[in-house]
Amino acid sequence: MNVDDLDKQLMFLKEIDGLKRVVRQSPLLDRSRKENSAEHSWHLAMYAWLLQEYAAEPVDISRVIRMLLLHDVVEVDAGDTPIHAPSDRDDQAEREARAAVRLFGLLPGAQGEELMALWREFEAAESADAKFAKALDRFQPFLVNISTDGGTWSENNVSREQVLKRYSVEIGRGAPRLWALCEEWVAAHPENWQRPKP
Amino acid sequence: MNVDDLDKQLMFLKEIDGLKRVVRQSPLLDRSRKENSAEHSWHLAMYAWLLQEYAAEPVDISRVIRMLLLHDVVEVDAGDTPIHAPSDRDDQAEREARAAVRLFGLLPGAQGEELMALWREFEAAESADAKFAKALDRFQPFLVNISTDGGTWSENNVSREQVLKRYSVEIGRGAPRLWALCEEWVAAHPENWQRPKP
Repeated sequence: MNVDDLDKQLMFLKEIDGLKRVVRQSPLLDRSRKENSAEHSWHLAMYAWLLQEYAAEPVDISRVIRMLLLHDVVEVDAGDTPIHAPSDRDDQAEREARAAVRLFGLLPGAQGEELMALWREFEAAESADAKFAKALDRFQPFLVNISTDGGTWSENNVSREQVLKRYSVEIGRGAPRLWALCEEWVAAHPENWQRPKP
Repeated sequence: MNVDDLDKQLMFLKEIDGLKRVVRQSPLLDRSRKENSAEHSWHLAMYAWLLQEYAAEPVDISRVIRMLLLHDVVEVDAGDTPIHAPSDRDDQAEREARAAVRLFGLLPGAQGEELMALWREFEAAESADAKFAKALDRFQPFLVNISTDGGTWSENNVSREQVLKRYSVEIGRGAPRLWALCEEWVAAHPENWQRPKP
C-alpha cells in the first residue's frame, strides 16, 4: 500500500461528487425534477446488468457496467450535452477530452490510464462492449420520454421522424431487440406524444 | 428472447427510478443538498472499483460493484434508515424484506432470484465480497462527514467516541487500511467537529 496512492484515489472520489450536480434534460419518471448524471449513471449500470441478454454481440458485462459508471464523469468539468439542443460538438468534445486528462490524472498512474482507456473506448463506440453501453445510454432516456408523454421530445418539439432518426443507429446497432421495441412505442404514439387520456 | 421477460425487466427498471427520490442524511460534499440513494449507490460502486486493493480479503470486484448498485434498492419501498437516528431496526428489516420480495419478484424468475441472493448476501455481511461492500457503505458517508465539519455527526451531536464505536466494526473488518485512516481523521478533529478556520 502506497499512502500517496490512497490520497490520490480519495481526491478523485471527492472530485467526482460534482457529477451529482450535473443536471440532465431528462426528467425522473414521476416528472418531479430533472435527473442528474450521477443517478443516471447508476440507473444505466442497472440497465446493463439486467438487459445484457439483448446486446447485439457477446459482451463482458462487468466491463460494460464499469464503462457506464464512468461514461459521464467528464461532465464534472464539461457539463452535459443534450442530444436535442443545438451545440458545438467539436468544442464539447475538446472540453471533455481536457476534463478526462485532468480528472483521470488525479489517480495513480496505472489506474488513471485504465479509466482513460475505458472512457475512450466508450466514446469511440467500436467495441462490442462500447456499442452496447452506447445503446443503453440512448435507450434509458428513450424509455423515460415514452413514459412521460414525450418528455424532452415534447419540450424540444422533436417529431416522431426525428426521434427515429436520432436514436436508431446507436440503439439499433448495440441492442436491436430494444430498438424494435422503441419503434413499436413510437408507432403507438400520436405525433404530439400526448397519449389519449383514458 | 421472451417478450414477457423484457416487459418484466423494464417494469423493474422503471420501478427503481424511485430510488432517486429516497433522500439520505448525508450531504453532498459542497453541502448544497442531501444525497439521494441512487447517486449514493453510483458513488459507492466507484469507490469499490477504485479502492479494491484495500479489501481485507480477496474479493470479486465485479460482484462487489453489483452488490453496491443493488444494496439500497429495497428503499424504494422501505425508505432510508439513518445510522444515527433512533429507529426500530426489526421493523425496518421486515419492511426491507417485504420490499425485496415485491421488487425482485417483478423480474423473470432466475434473474429475480440472482438479485435476491446478492442482496441477502450483502445484508448478511459474512462473505468477503459483502464485508468489503459494507465497509464502503460506511466509509463513504464517513469521508463526507469528515469533509463537511462533521456533517450528520454535528447535526445529531454524535461524539468522536460514538463515531469510533459505530463505524469501527464494519469498516475495520472489511477494509482495515481505510479504518486506520478514519481513526487518524477523527484524532485530528476537535470534539465539536469544527475545523479551526485558517
